[in-house]
Amino acid sequence: MPEEGDLVHSQAGVQTTRPVQAAYGATPGSHCSRGSAMWVGRRVAELPTPAFVVDEAVARRNAERMLQRCRALGLRLRPHMKTHKTLEGGELMTGGTRRGIVVSTLAEARFFAAGGFDDILYAYPLPFDKLEECAVLAQRLEAFQVLVDSRDALAQLRRRRLARGVRWLVWMKLDCGNGRAGLRHTDPGALELARAIAQEAPEEVALAGVYAHCGNTYGCSGVPEIQAVAQATTAATLEFMGTLQEAGVTCPASSIGSTPSCSHPVADMGKLTEVHPGNYIFYDLQQVTIGSCQLEDVAVRVLTRVIGHYPHRNQLLVDCGWAGLSLHGLGQLPTGYALIEGHPDLKLVGMTQEHGRVEPVVGALDFSKFPLGSLLALIPYHACATAAMHPVYYVHAEGKVVATWKPVRGW
Amino acid sequence: MPEEGDLVHSQAGVQTTRPVQAAYGATPGSHCSRGSAMWVGRRVAELPTPAFVVDEAVARRNAERMLQRCRALGLRLRPHMKTHKTLEGGELMTGGTRRGIVVSTLAEARFFAAGGFDDILYAYPLPFDKLEECAVLAQRLEAFQVLVDSRDALAQLRRRRLARGVRWLVWMKLDCGNGRAGLRHTDPGALELARAIAQEAPEEVALAGVYAHCGNTYGCSGVPEIQAVAQATTAATLEFMGTLQEAGVTCPASSIGSTPSCSHPVADMGKLTEVHPGNYIFYDLQQVTIGSCQLEDVAVRVLTRVIGHYPHRNQLLVDCGWAGLSLHGLGQLPTGYALIEGHPDLKLVGMTQEHGRVEPVVGALDFSKFPLGSLLALIPYHACATAAMHPVYYVHAEGKVVATWKPVRGW
Repeated sequence: MPEEGDLVHSQAGVQTTRPVQAAYGATPGSHCSRGSAMWVGRRVAELPTPAFVVDEAVARRNAERMLQRCRALGLRLRPHMKTHKTLEGGELMTGGTRRGIVVSTLAEARFFAAGGFDDILYAYPLPFDKLEECAVLAQRLEAFQVLVDSRDALAQLRRRRLARGVRWLVWMKLDCGNGRAGLRHTDPGALELARAIAQEAPEEVALAGVYAHCGNTYGCSGVPEIQAVAQATTAATLEFMGTLQEAGVTCPASSIGSTPSCSHPVADMGKLTEVHPGNYIFYDLQQVTIGSCQLEDVAVRVLTRVIGHYPHRNQLLVDCGWAGLSLHGLGQLPTGYALIEGHPDLKLVGMTQEHGRVEPVVGALDFSKFPLGSLLALIPYHACATAAMHPVYYVHAEGKVVATWKPVRGW
Repeated sequence: MPEEGDLVHSQAGVQTTRPVQAAYGATPGSHCSRGSAMWVGRRVAELPTPAFVVDEAVARRNAERMLQRCRALGLRLRPHMKTHKTLEGGELMTGGTRRGIVVSTLAEARFFAAGGFDDILYAYPLPFDKLEECAVLAQRLEAFQVLVDSRDALAQLRRRRLARGVRWLVWMKLDCGNGRAGLRHTDPGALELARAIAQEAPEEVALAGVYAHCGNTYGCSGVPEIQAVAQATTAATLEFMGTLQEAGVTCPASSIGSTPSCSHPVADMGKLTEVHPGNYIFYDLQQVTIGSCQLEDVAVRVLTRVIGHYPHRNQLLVDCGWAGLSLHGLGQLPTGYALIEGHPDLKLVGMTQEHGRVEPVVGALDFSKFPLGSLLALIPYHACATAAMHPVYYVHAEGKVVATWKPVRGW
């Protein structure tokens, strides 16, 4: 039997929470330290709230399944670090190799490089103000790779020649229908730019690969729609690789990615060399809604406590506002900004900076079930956004904190 | 004449930005340090982006005007720290006294206490998991004050008696129409709770004041509506203070607050003892929309650079996504998630984690005006939310960085 206050798995495999009054005051003075490491070995239900918690087993399973999926397709997995931004998460996602990752900020690049990671692809349209720091990383790592989608960016690289025979390793960004960065694969400019990267100054710059992000899978609903986008993105990327080959432009790698597409890959993705999903280590309600995963695959929660009862308006307050959850769930869910685990009958209807307002979806709230101080677990809509609000993640196994992870932030 | 790349004031008093190509590469290696202090003395236009910048003169003027406004009303200003969460911002808002502030997280309380601040009101429904840390602060500071709105919370305080004759200093939260925390002033339970705080154990607990937040001013449009809410909140609070007096319950202080109401106070607010606004040090587009201030009073911007041109869809990309701005402007503004300073004809139509998509409100974009690398300044919709995304604020005067402020985060 689970103890009062434990995070326990229900028969459906979904975690539910129980009130944790028993935990209060049991260890006076326990909340006085500012260090997060002191929580290791303690019960999750004792954590000060709001707390971002990661179920280690679920995160590990998500990471391993993606590695297996890629292995089965003969694809290299180059996981994206942007969701968790932690060394420990990167370790899990690379299967312990610490080699072959994607980052979207230079702060992440520096952080992972300092943490012993290498073969880092900074998959972001080369920001000219950060060229010098990119050069430092390119000189220092075995493989620090940048991304461009314009002649101007290539010209910047040419102007900042690397020393000691090191070449800029450059991926070209392709837009296969997502509509963010990148050249359209049908644009004649795409071949021209690839050729320029590969051939203009081969002693200074090398074409390392072609990169496409199928972020348009985020508009999908269900596996067939996800796979249709994955297929279209794969086909466009492979078509462009064929165009390069015909034109005599050597390009060793091709990569597409997004958590929905890589959670349900199509066979043709095996003809690429890499994929680069990121969110899947945590997953979230958005991914459940899209069809990338099941609710039981979501590894993260924000723990929050009840701090007020307001029967006259049929509401209670919890100690998590947008500062602990983000606003990303706004208008996306029938249960408001999040799903309150084990309580699908409750709705997180409003959030200010540090307060969340909760009321029943219908009917009158039974306040006796939610005494002041009792714990609730919010399943976030967008894990990347929620994780970004927390300076520390509490990683747990079987109701106990087993580690604390500290993400990098900034740019 | 302003130099290319300077942040300059236009005739309307609103800052506009110009392309800053001239600044690139002028100081090779300049972006290699991770420390933010190295930016002091440098030009704002050289900062790596996205960067949260604070116009020191505007922030100082905002702080001084609020102090003057309160002085004129014979009111004490107890500024809220939640927007900026920095020692330097607290220094400005308290007029250098570092006495008499409000915080909404325990992390802020610890941070400001460690920074030499005192008379700190933790104006948040007492979170039971943080009682022990509250006790530590109550023993250590001259005046660390907590807030309750329930008998349960009072019972928690009674159970954790302070040592050496120190009493819990307790504010009672009143809900005067905002509908978040607090007892309604007309609820008989409000008088009962105030009496219990004041009289139940006077050697352990003291009633320090009555506290109301008129967050409902955020639904206002224009000064008359703001003042109507300010008047109603003031009247309700004063009526409750009268009820206490009639009942023989001594209560030395009464405080209401919100940036809209305190930016346009009504005369009756002079009958209170304190007010506690917070956002006004920065202001933002939300406050401009409400009518709290003018655009020229907004002290903060997020600087961002153009990283991509996509003529086929009439859009450019900038290097600020929701990780640098928050999603708080969503659906609130005709110009999208923010206002791009000096370019009211542009719209920030979409944001992902690190990318912003910009297009004209109408017509075709003249890309030649926005070369890759050029700088734009985003005026945020909600300064509290945008500030929360940044580990450092760059404070500037006359186009130069004069200081870096580091906010506390977490709980």
